[in-house]
Amino acid sequence: MATLRDPNSDDLDVLSRIAGEAGVRSDADAAPYLSDPRDIEQGRAALVVRPDTTDTVAEIIRYCAKQRIGVVPHGGGTGLVGGQIVAEGPLPVVLSLDRMTRIRDVIPEENALIAEAGVILADVQNAAEEAGRLFPLSLAAEGSCRIGGNLSTNAGGVQVLRYGNARDLCLGIEAVLPNGEVLHGLKTLRKDNTGYDLRHLLIGAEGTLGVITAAALKLYPQPGAVVTGMLVVKDPASAVTLLRALQDRLGDQITAFELISGVGLGFIRQYFPEAQDPLDGDPPWRVLIEVIGPGDGGLQDRVETALTDVFEMGLANDGVLASSEAQRTNMWWIRETIPECNRKVGAVSNHDLSVPVSRIAQFIEEGAATVAKLDPEFRTNCFGHLGDGNLHYNVFPPEGRRRDEFTNRRPEIKAAIHDLVAAHGGSVSAEHGIGRFKREDLVKYGDPAKLAAMRAIKAALDPAGIMNPGAVL
Amino acid sequence: MATLRDPNSDDLDVLSRIAGEAGVRSDADAAPYLSDPRDIEQGRAALVVRPDTTDTVAEIIRYCAKQRIGVVPHGGGTGLVGGQIVAEGPLPVVLSLDRMTRIRDVIPEENALIAEAGVILADVQNAAEEAGRLFPLSLAAEGSCRIGGNLSTNAGGVQVLRYGNARDLCLGIEAVLPNGEVLHGLKTLRKDNTGYDLRHLLIGAEGTLGVITAAALKLYPQPGAVVTGMLVVKDPASAVTLLRALQDRLGDQITAFELISGVGLGFIRQYFPEAQDPLDGDPPWRVLIEVIGPGDGGLQDRVETALTDVFEMGLANDGVLASSEAQRTNMWWIRETIPECNRKVGAVSNHDLSVPVSRIAQFIEEGAATVAKLDPEFRTNCFGHLGDGNLHYNVFPPEGRRRDEFTNRRPEIKAAIHDLVAAHGGSVSAEHGIGRFKREDLVKYGDPAKLAAMRAIKAALDPAGIMNPGAVL
Repeated sequence: MATLRDPNSDDLDVLSRIAGEAGVRSDADAAPYLSDPRDIEQGRAALVVRPDTTDTVAEIIRYCAKQRIGVVPHGGGTGLVGGQIVAEGPLPVVLSLDRMTRIRDVIPEENALIAEAGVILADVQNAAEEAGRLFPLSLAAEGSCRIGGNLSTNAGGVQVLRYGNARDLCLGIEAVLPNGEVLHGLKTLRKDNTGYDLRHLLIGAEGTLGVITAAALKLYPQPGAVVTGMLVVKDPASAVTLLRALQDRLGDQITAFELISGVGLGFIRQYFPEAQDPLDGDPPWRVLIEVIGPGDGGLQDRVETALTDVFEMGLANDGVLASSEAQRTNMWWIRETIPECNRKVGAVSNHDLSVPVSRIAQFIEEGAATVAKLDPEFRTNCFGHLGDGNLHYNVFPPEGRRRDEFTNRRPEIKAAIHDLVAAHGGSVSAEHGIGRFKREDLVKYGDPAKLAAMRAIKAALDPAGIMNPGAVL
Repeated sequence: MATLRDPNSDDLDVLSRIAGEAGVRSDADAAPYLSDPRDIEQGRAALVVRPDTTDTVAEIIRYCAKQRIGVVPHGGGTGLVGGQIVAEGPLPVVLSLDRMTRIRDVIPEENALIAEAGVILADVQNAAEEAGRLFPLSLAAEGSCRIGGNLSTNAGGVQVLRYGNARDLCLGIEAVLPNGEVLHGLKTLRKDNTGYDLRHLLIGAEGTLGVITAAALKLYPQPGAVVTGMLVVKDPASAVTLLRALQDRLGDQITAFELISGVGLGFIRQYFPEAQDPLDGDPPWRVLIEVIGPGDGGLQDRVETALTDVFEMGLANDGVLASSEAQRTNMWWIRETIPECNRKVGAVSNHDLSVPVSRIAQFIEEGAATVAKLDPEFRTNCFGHLGDGNLHYNVFPPEGRRRDEFTNRRPEIKAAIHDLVAAHGGSVSAEHGIGRFKREDLVKYGDPAKLAAMRAIKAALDPAGIMNPGAVL
């Protein structure tokens, strides 16, 4: 692949002119575009441009392709694997989509909505709700992440069990390809078998094959009724059996099934002493469940009947269903505040992994032994989307110590956990992507034929290698 | 792209040796591998090989890549766009998957099943059912089409409204790439963001980027209850309004919403006079609906309540719900027998199109005017998956005439219908793919940036152009 170069002052002049006065971020205000939420690395950029139309994005890309200047697409900057930051190599241009925030169309009768890449996820959800529909993608960062980034990284979140990942919620995309051509694919059709599915290729490519500028998103009917509850389980094995038992009774009306560890609860109590715990006691594991159904008034009864069964089966020891929207919000607050607490505590190593659901209990048990072998005082907070087999598995320094003291242990912790994941047929990046932090893992654990094909596709579509250089591959 | 050549007798010897005695189909028995269901074109092959392992498929592909011999993957042979037949150019090798019929694993606790490419769709459905699960892909050809072909063409069918297309039901694939390397991707994970999604690239590529040899398929809980009904509607506009009214009441519990025309019903009465019509009279339009829900005994009531509403709204004039499995089977028999009747009548031109659902009524109205302008005596049978915006739109010769007499009219009929589809933002191939019969349409109606990217990907992964040469691109 051709060598990229640092932009010179002429390049910066041209790019600034293309982006327009409002479309250039001054150096003083560039910091938010050059960091990751966990402050793992410091990004660099020759320029931060913020185009507000697809045509301007295309013009910038065309210029950079011709001049061999790297372009790093930037959404909400909430990605956790460094896909948005370049710490080394030639200085890139950061291309922020944060001025492309129009919802171009809401079409409730087609269960579709067309949003530009810079629309904040929560704003997409709200626009759908105003039209009497549901956009089910939901994750902790929804107040600041942007839909283009969600799609580029194929975000997951808490409703995947029922509605799938971001890619499953996208009917079509508009994107600027690495040669500056615009891919026009904003159809809202449910069926369209006309050629290779480039939408799915760009979704999850983390900006390395082009920039998604807008998307046609799939909406759902709003659920008639929602029942949310928190249950105490003895261990992860019980949680898995509980999931299956509830699925046998409630089918795919279960939209969320989240595992919460006692360690995570402890962090919340530490940093948010005012937090309201809906359950008493100090149990090692809990699950947060959410069930949707028709608005016929019968859902609560059906869930309660199912819960009676699982309590009789000994799969849960204690539990409560939210009886108000406030209680429901509070249960979700607890779940969604765990990542924030993790950041406050400061993990030595973070893992976003998935294993087959039937392997979860064994994985967690072996994971605990693996971590203990590295340092018996390391603390682990393992939590997340158990229903999808997706665990966030974070290893923390011993009580009272700082993560900086253990930075040198990170590689061996990561290798040990990821080896275990691979042994269980899992994925070392379930929903966060590869970015720059997991590039070596992709090579280490990825299928060689897949990697070779990825490289061939990258070289074919982006021969100059300008798009998000150093990410993924 | 490099030029392919006819295999010589040495090539045939080598390929026959690789495939083994049982893996070569004699010329006398090759006919089923060289035709399409509508007998539109006659295929040719230097050899039909039927490998029974992935390694053998890989060995064949490696040899053909080296020797520049075209390879045409063959599933059940039920494709309707000529993707399985080569009528011109260098003689290819037909690679049939019909001996790769093992279901490698059924994992009900993971809601997954691993099937080789040659497993007949109905056998996949049955294997899921035996494990207490549902594999929801369902289409008229399910007794003979094979899952590898379903995935390669991203098949649709009658439950897309609820469960999506074939691609939505696939968790992972194993495939042989055009260089003979094996892509190992049979994970059953719900979340795996490790690099480009090659699964979705190969799904729908119609064998032009490799051969799918096995797939990890997504299973669902079996629905607790199913309610099936047939309703009489005044016109397509009423059918669309009816769909939306029922969706408002029943959400995405509606799994199928199929439009049936009076013309189609007439064909059935003509060719199957013994057919049992669940409704009296000769209405111009009907819809077949299917609704699923929990097995709590309440679904029938909920559907009846919804139907009472829509009858009061004047959206349906008559209708009946199946009160036995026999009645349900009969309703579906009527729907699924329409394609067979169409073949018996013999269409001049067949179209598999989609438009936004809100455009369907206008499209059908304008389509009738368009066809009448070409010949007022042409008959049109427009039917299919209205809930997905997907219509099968077949134009037949005047009563008493044969399709052969009108073969020269086919191009203008096709162009007129496809222009209308494009004007409504639709797709000229909703679920059948491009194959060879719609290649020109892809160029005419496709996005130029998409086409260029497709060609670049094809050249990158298959530089010798051996995989299904002449299909799609």
